[in-house]
Amino acid sequence: MQGLITEQTGCALTVTLNRPQQRNALNSATLDELERKLGEAEDNPQLRALVIRGAGGNFCAGGDLADMLEAQQAYSDGNQRAFTELSRRYGGLLQALKRSRLVIICAVEGVVMGGGVGLVCASDFTIAAPGSRFSLPETRLGLIPAQIAPFLNSRIGPGQTRRLALAGEILDAAEAQHIGLVHQLAVSAEELGRGVDGILDNIRRSAPGALATTKTLVRRSGEISDEELGALLDEAAEDFSAAVLSEEAKEGAMAFIEKRKPYWAQE
Amino acid sequence: MQGLITEQTGCALTVTLNRPQQRNALNSATLDELERKLGEAEDNPQLRALVIRGAGGNFCAGGDLADMLEAQQAYSDGNQRAFTELSRRYGGLLQALKRSRLVIICAVEGVVMGGGVGLVCASDFTIAAPGSRFSLPETRLGLIPAQIAPFLNSRIGPGQTRRLALAGEILDAAEAQHIGLVHQLAVSAEELGRGVDGILDNIRRSAPGALATTKTLVRRSGEISDEELGALLDEAAEDFSAAVLSEEAKEGAMAFIEKRKPYWAQE
Amino acid sequence: MQGLITEQTGCALTVTLNRPQQRNALNSATLDELERKLGEAEDNPQLRALVIRGAGGNFCAGGDLADMLEAQQAYSDGNQRAFTELSRRYGGLLQALKRSRLVIICAVEGVVMGGGVGLVCASDFTIAAPGSRFSLPETRLGLIPAQIAPFLNSRIGPGQTRRLALAGEILDAAEAQHIGLVHQLAVSAEELGRGVDGILDNIRRSAPGALATTKTLVRRSGEISDEELGALLDEAAEDFSAAVLSEEAKEGAMAFIEKRKPYWAQE
Repeated sequence: MQGLITEQTGCALTVTLNRPQQRNALNSATLDELERKLGEAEDNPQLRALVIRGAGGNFCAGGDLADMLEAQQAYSDGNQRAFTELSRRYGGLLQALKRSRLVIICAVEGVVMGGGVGLVCASDFTIAAPGSRFSLPETRLGLIPAQIAPFLNSRIGPGQTRRLALAGEILDAAEAQHIGLVHQLAVSAEELGRGVDGILDNIRRSAPGALATTKTLVRRSGEISDEELGALLDEAAEDFSAAVLSEEAKEGAMAFIEKRKPYWAQE
Repeated sequence: MQGLITEQTGCALTVTLNRPQQRNALNSATLDELERKLGEAEDNPQLRALVIRGAGGNFCAGGDLADMLEAQQAYSDGNQRAFTELSRRYGGLLQALKRSRLVIICAVEGVVMGGGVGLVCASDFTIAAPGSRFSLPETRLGLIPAQIAPFLNSRIGPGQTRRLALAGEILDAAEAQHIGLVHQLAVSAEELGRGVDGILDNIRRSAPGALATTKTLVRRSGEISDEELGALLDEAAEDFSAAVLSEEAKEGAMAFIEKRKPYWAQE
Repeated sequence: MQGLITEQTGCALTVTLNRPQQRNALNSATLDELERKLGEAEDNPQLRALVIRGAGGNFCAGGDLADMLEAQQAYSDGNQRAFTELSRRYGGLLQALKRSRLVIICAVEGVVMGGGVGLVCASDFTIAAPGSRFSLPETRLGLIPAQIAPFLNSRIGPGQTRRLALAGEILDAAEAQHIGLVHQLAVSAEELGRGVDGILDNIRRSAPGALATTKTLVRRSGEISDEELGALLDEAAEDFSAAVLSEEAKEGAMAFIEKRKPYWAQE
């Protein structure tokens, strides 16, 4: 089975995260393939938009456990930067999406967690099916939403970012639209594709060069620069590594495996 | 017929864009007159607020076609900066509104397009009639919302700016309020004036000097500085000129004149 | 009677502003006590959250009149910085809340005015009872929301800050939620405590160290730095002092005492 399914229709390439058993958690292989497809799409003059979806009723459950275990092994084998690199790699994808000349559209449903929220924040337009559920569960495992925080801050402002990152709530689609994480609600999960078609129809009417220039223009209009963003993501990757290696993260992982509450969550 | 009608009532000067046949598109003459009226109002100690409205049921359809044709002529005659100057001139008005000691109020109805959205973003308070329709149609003509982007970014944040500038949607008054483009909805178009009176009543209760100091204070509170804004608008004017002179813009203009779809919008 | 009542339950310390006759206006004594309690709470490893409430059905009516009179006396006695220091002192508390490793929760009801709005903006999460009323009445007295403006700007963006600070409107709880001043509405004033328990339950599930790191991470993610914020607050304190000593503020105070309208608010 392919980790990523791609389909080109008119001016848009649709990439579907296709690991439904893992609720489309992003592993290194999928990340590499997604970034490669993005690069190819940018070089294809026919394309103006990239649509990201998830297979099997969920959008994306965030990072992949297997990658974490592999990084742990690498760390044990002496690579002290294993977790820093794993974290920064993900932020690199988000940067590439933001820097892209293509209009990035996320069409989400079901679970949108952690790194899945990051994809949403790096997109230009997000449409959500009514049953979507958005959350940043990192702190419950003793981890932090390291690469995601700067993109959240840009998308919904610090006043909503702190609330979402700290209180660990699960937002439904309407609440996500209220705070600007989502731009449009689909009538139903079945109608999500039709909603995307409507957005693509608007994009088709727009000139490709003008779209690319406008995207760059908005990025320069008072938003954090790509250089500053890169520096922030570097620091955040160090923070992530430190968090993973903390006692809290060890306890969080053990509690998860043993299906019990971590010590800090005892009543 | 006057391009601008002004009326002073109490502490407010109301200026009404009065070219209803052109849906109050902003030409150079109106721009100059508006900026002159603003300057006079600032020097009038009786005034605390400037209200901007549109005549004939629409607020403002953006830039004026005649100005574009004139700039084209100037460009053909050897003034390579004709479009840069035309663009930057409009940004200068928005800067003057933002820098003004007066509370700027936009009371909008009907069409609010392109440069009309710019006026809304440069205002301190916007009230809209229910039937208002907001859009940035630039990219459909191969152009870009150059001078508008930094003001949009300040008003509604990058997460909504990219969506509005790229997907070219038309937002109704309720959606515009949802994202913060509009602060208040009038009960009906007929009640728009009454809504403005309510806002002016609040301003009348506030001390003039305190209002001016507060406006400056908010501008300094983490917002982009006037100097940085000026630099951005200079760059954006260059981008606008490049966009106007592109093949896309030529095709967009031809398609518009010939009432056909441009090549990029073929199904 | 104590100016501040504190109660520790699980991982949270609740501090209740307890000057109901003054609608919990913040005087120097309360400010000092609140900052001291915050410091103690940060040193207590059991604590992860600080909840701020108000006694007697109101949250907080802002600054205290007695402090203003005292500063006036000090100014008359030769301390030219009396009002600058009074203003900056309040901003120092807001900075301490923002810099804190604890999750700060405001649970508000009734009157939330001036400095009370500042507490809300410096918090990470705000829940409001349906009858809450939010306003910045400073300009009506010839004063300015000096220390509050940068925190408002960070919480709700410049587009809503100018509107709220200039037009002096009173927002209800639903409008405050619409613009992001409030994150959640309680079902009723009686259920406000139950709403807070729900938020604390989410925080209890999160690892303490991860919460603290995440709060720092979000603050760095493109938000104004603590250093820049400090410089802004210093300048704003000078502006406040100048406003207090202006003719407008004298007229505002006289009109308030004489229960008449100030000259600028005559019809």
